Amino acid sequence: MKFSRLIVDGKTILALEEEGKYVSVDDLLKRDRGSTDLSYTFDHSSLIEEQMKKGNYSYLDVKNPGFAPAVGNPGKIICIGLNYRSHVEETEKKIPEYPVLFSKYSNSLAGHLENIKINGPGLKVDYEGELGVMIGRTARNAGEDFDKYIFGYFIGNDISSRELQYRTSQYLLGKTLDGFYPNGPFVVTKDEIASLQNLWIKTKVNGEVRQDSSTSNMIFSIGKLIPYISRFLTLEPGDIISTGTPEGVVLGMKDKQNNWLKPGDTVEVSIEGLGSLQNKFV
Amino acid sequence: MKFSRLIVDGKTILALEEEGKYVSVDDLLKRDRGSTDLSYTFDHSSLIEEQMKKGNYSYLDVKNPGFAPAVGNPGKIICIGLNYRSHVEETEKKIPEYPVLFSKYSNSLAGHLENIKINGPGLKVDYEGELGVMIGRTARNAGEDFDKYIFGYFIGNDISSRELQYRTSQYLLGKTLDGFYPNGPFVVTKDEIASLQNLWIKTKVNGEVRQDSSTSNMIFSIGKLIPYISRFLTLEPGDIISTGTPEGVVLGMKDKQNNWLKPGDTVEVSIEGLGSLQNKFV
Repeated sequence: MKFSRLIVDGKTILALEEEGKYVSVDDLLKRDRGSTDLSYTFDHSSLIEEQMKKGNYSYLDVKNPGFAPAVGNPGKIICIGLNYRSHVEETEKKIPEYPVLFSKYSNSLAGHLENIKINGPGLKVDYEGELGVMIGRTARNAGEDFDKYIFGYFIGNDISSRELQYRTSQYLLGKTLDGFYPNGPFVVTKDEIASLQNLWIKTKVNGEVRQDSSTSNMIFSIGKLIPYISRFLTLEPGDIISTGTPEGVVLGMKDKQNNWLKPGDTVEVSIEGLGSLQNKFV
Repeated sequence: MKFSRLIVDGKTILALEEEGKYVSVDDLLKRDRGSTDLSYTFDHSSLIEEQMKKGNYSYLDVKNPGFAPAVGNPGKIICIGLNYRSHVEETEKKIPEYPVLFSKYSNSLAGHLENIKINGPGLKVDYEGELGVMIGRTARNAGEDFDKYIFGYFIGNDISSRELQYRTSQYLLGKTLDGFYPNGPFVVTKDEIASLQNLWIKTKVNGEVRQDSSTSNMIFSIGKLIPYISRFLTLEPGDIISTGTPEGVVLGMKDKQNNWLKPGDTVEVSIEGLGSLQNKFV
């Protein structure tokens, strides 16, 4: 199943996507306006599937819905740095011995098709197309059973101000500007993604391919990340892990100055089976 | 006013402290069980004060209440690294040109008197007594009027696993283990703290003074931090900023090996006007 959080007439609606059409989860479950929190669906997946099979639904009459952040409001946004070998090389860093964790705050969340504001000159704004994992079940000391804690997957763009990211030793500030983590258009449940560590991932800027890689190139696979992280901190439903970006970012180019993102640019990140996330910079 | 979040009979109660006794904010406002979210009080301060003046209350009949994290569940836990000159020197780093920001997640929150679990050997666990600021009003591009965005102040202990903090370039993992940010016992409203940048701050380990400094020694005062941060990310009510620790941590000692915190140790952080935060390690 593919879930989106649509904005219709100013309200956020949790919706199931089917071939470009949408079904309201509230309607499907015959309930009054419920939570738009995606974690609600974790425990109702089978009921939702059952209702869909029965055909007990109608499609929402929306032509061009707006998209709220697909992930809702996660308790933790955990980002993994330097997790693709070729990206590590382009940034002239060493291959990490352990996963490099940093974070963004919820102010950074933005939806598919939402405009991203570049807040002042000189910020050296860069894209990072990434595969995101949404946790569905409380995880402590996960092991080889890591999969059972996963709800699904989505596309995220870990937008970064390289100026702020490298102003001090800690990345945080450069990663968490308002709107700097667009994600969506869907969260896709895990059953739909067969070969998680072998998905193509592509980023285009104004239609030109900049990143073109595969999740097979991750240094630490999702099966390594969840056990590593959950040894030290408890993962909760709705938490997300953004698993790092492949090569092809502006930071790795010879001519950086002419390639930092600027107002008017459009970035599109696509991942096999997860759709395309598109955002314009203003 | 001093607000605590008490645990009484398994329930969390938002309470006002007065000379060691507690008044339920729900009782005071003649409402049914309401939100224990501290941000609720931001908009009701004058009503609460009025009721207190009228004497319209009775004290809660609790002898030894438990304490939930005083700060509730903040949307952002923003920590400032290397913000006291003498602490920068003891860690042999350079004086930062800009504030160093990093974060903890909400899983790190713990209450006054709560036991803190040391999760395995070799983690090199250290204390960091800190003054915390709680935001009371949405802040974007704050300036010299920074004070109007503040709700109050509290004591935090930015407990750190030095092993995990320095395992990669990013501090996050070593800072956000479950329970590694005890705070409280109160959030004290700003009107009660006259000379914010001239408060003594002390940390004792098993009764022995380890940190003994003053908030006058901060490199970036709170009046610098709020404008700097809110230029790049929107601060929301309930967000907190932990303003860094003075010298005297284990990391700065010659004999570190015998001084990392171990099960049985008790750490007490005290700040002028804000009480004492005490936690035992297990």
